[in-house]
Amino acid sequence: MEFRCELVRTVDDSYDIEIGRKLESKLVSDLKNGLLGKRKRLAVITDSNVKELYAGSITAMLTEAGFSAEMFVIPAGEKSKTREMKEFLEDSMLEKGFRRDCAVVAVGGGVVTDLAGFTAGTFGRGVPFVNYATTLLAAADASVGGKTAVDTPLATNLIGMFNQPKKVYIDIECWKTLPKRELSSGLAETVKHACLGDEEMFSYLEEHIAEILENKAEPCEYIAEKNCGIKYSVVMKDERESGLREILNLGHTVGRAIETCSDYRLLHGEAVSIGLVAQARLGQELGFISKENVGRLERLLQNAGLPIRVPGYIQIPELLKKLYTDKKVRDSRLRFVFQKEIGDVMQFSENNYGRPVSESEIAAVLEKIAE
Amino acid sequence: MEFRCELVRTVDDSYDIEIGRKLESKLVSDLKNGLLGKRKRLAVITDSNVKELYAGSITAMLTEAGFSAEMFVIPAGEKSKTREMKEFLEDSMLEKGFRRDCAVVAVGGGVVTDLAGFTAGTFGRGVPFVNYATTLLAAADASVGGKTAVDTPLATNLIGMFNQPKKVYIDIECWKTLPKRELSSGLAETVKHACLGDEEMFSYLEEHIAEILENKAEPCEYIAEKNCGIKYSVVMKDERESGLREILNLGHTVGRAIETCSDYRLLHGEAVSIGLVAQARLGQELGFISKENVGRLERLLQNAGLPIRVPGYIQIPELLKKLYTDKKVRDSRLRFVFQKEIGDVMQFSENNYGRPVSESEIAAVLEKIAE
Repeated sequence: MEFRCELVRTVDDSYDIEIGRKLESKLVSDLKNGLLGKRKRLAVITDSNVKELYAGSITAMLTEAGFSAEMFVIPAGEKSKTREMKEFLEDSMLEKGFRRDCAVVAVGGGVVTDLAGFTAGTFGRGVPFVNYATTLLAAADASVGGKTAVDTPLATNLIGMFNQPKKVYIDIECWKTLPKRELSSGLAETVKHACLGDEEMFSYLEEHIAEILENKAEPCEYIAEKNCGIKYSVVMKDERESGLREILNLGHTVGRAIETCSDYRLLHGEAVSIGLVAQARLGQELGFISKENVGRLERLLQNAGLPIRVPGYIQIPELLKKLYTDKKVRDSRLRFVFQKEIGDVMQFSENNYGRPVSESEIAAVLEKIAE
Repeated sequence: MEFRCELVRTVDDSYDIEIGRKLESKLVSDLKNGLLGKRKRLAVITDSNVKELYAGSITAMLTEAGFSAEMFVIPAGEKSKTREMKEFLEDSMLEKGFRRDCAVVAVGGGVVTDLAGFTAGTFGRGVPFVNYATTLLAAADASVGGKTAVDTPLATNLIGMFNQPKKVYIDIECWKTLPKRELSSGLAETVKHACLGDEEMFSYLEEHIAEILENKAEPCEYIAEKNCGIKYSVVMKDERESGLREILNLGHTVGRAIETCSDYRLLHGEAVSIGLVAQARLGQELGFISKENVGRLERLLQNAGLPIRVPGYIQIPELLKKLYTDKKVRDSRLRFVFQKEIGDVMQFSENNYGRPVSESEIAAVLEKIAE
């Protein structure tokens, strides 16, 4: 006997990204004007650094505006992106009486927005959330695409879900309080976007990288918008990452593995920077990119304050092993995305932008770019 | 500066429920015929009881059929529905090399299907899964609706997600190997469905309850299909539980709390049975149901082998406190769903089937039905 469950529906996950400076009062007025419906109970999720700088005052402003807001603070750093920290947030929220009628306001960088978005997605089987991105990395990485996740000892970003925020705020003013190293780290994703989708943006970066590092208004807004635009155009065409979306993984096969192997001594963007160099070097050998363009890429990354060599404390054999935890792995074979010169990516067959890479191919490149 | 992300899409989560006896080979042939696309790597998730009875042979059949299938076993029992057990499954799967190109086959009762569905939903940000339901409870509870979740020390079913299976198999033959107590437990959800949506089904149950307990073919298939039908009609009208879907919570405010307070000495259905009596008794006082119909309900539950009194080892004050972890709580006030005589529910305002209940109202009822 068969019983058919027909479940076809239209889902509207559209949302706005607001790019500007000092957007705290805009956030509060949006919430007052019903951005999250009638929800009054707000969990402001942040980290130990951002708490003092922005999240504390945002929580106070929300309380002032009549919301029942409480702040939940995780330790700053990539090591907080774990299932244990998600449990900590859940238990703290439950203990404070938060239920499925609450909403989440994430205030911080990529770790906070990733963790808060995932937590919101499974709390009470899903409550709405907004992202207030305080870092360039979050602006580049966490504003478009709806990817949320945590890391586990065995793999980064493999446990998570697609969950779209109700709105994203990119506060460029916050970048001023970022340690220089953090700002550089965020620029890695920006450079990646230029590499895979916009040669003009790449040239612009080559010219204005110093001004960006100084938080000059115009170039910062330019890259914030370009980041959203490029990522959006890719994600729109392939929301669930079956094909095209994989190109956003440029530099990430090696990058993620290096990040883990460094035990997070390297920041995400720093690891991605080395990963970008690795795919470019291998791509040069395979004829996908000229030596000259590889040089331009390495120079830009260096000028952005990013490392372009595998640190000496990382063992190549261990790194090679870690590559297999990449989510692009198919039938236990490594697959890489490659840029095609600058501003485009290689397509290997219909809807396929990943090329199988043998362990020896990538091992040779990694040996060459090891410190 | 504003950037708009337009994300409107049509989602088709339709699937079939197959009701019958000995459906193992149907499962295997469906998978061979591409039910889950080209996915070859299958995680068979089961528990320590079902492993020996069905999951082991299903895994062997899948391997035989050319799949790369591995079995992951959780301890049998409600206590396994935790975040820790989800982590255990994730880590075991990652260790065995499972990645986002895998799929999950849940073989077992409600605990297994809830946990496996949730695990599949966040593994690699979501891989497909099928449910092979071996218990009446799973047939009644886990086949329609897409609800998956785990329990935490502070709340049951509050961490989870909506995740639809690709297909559900309800194998009535498996009910034969259920301990009598488990079968009775499953009948509580069946009685609940009759109470809230089908008076004829209620009468049928009054007449055939003994045959069902003996696993007679016709009445078992009847209730399996009725369960799906009633739940489907409710869920279809309200997939995200904003209003109507709450009626499926009939008996669950008290039920869930009793289940937790008993530290799982009571099975889910046993606790729900007492919860059904509690809402009926309170409903009688409020004029929603006649004394006679309350009597019919209590007799039917008893004949199904279910408890209708709060066990003596449960402290009422503790139970009252636990009620507030219910997900229907709004603005810190208890809300109950009530049946309207037999076969219907009370509607209190537009799209609202929950009535605020004061702590003293429900306390008085619980005192009366305490052992």
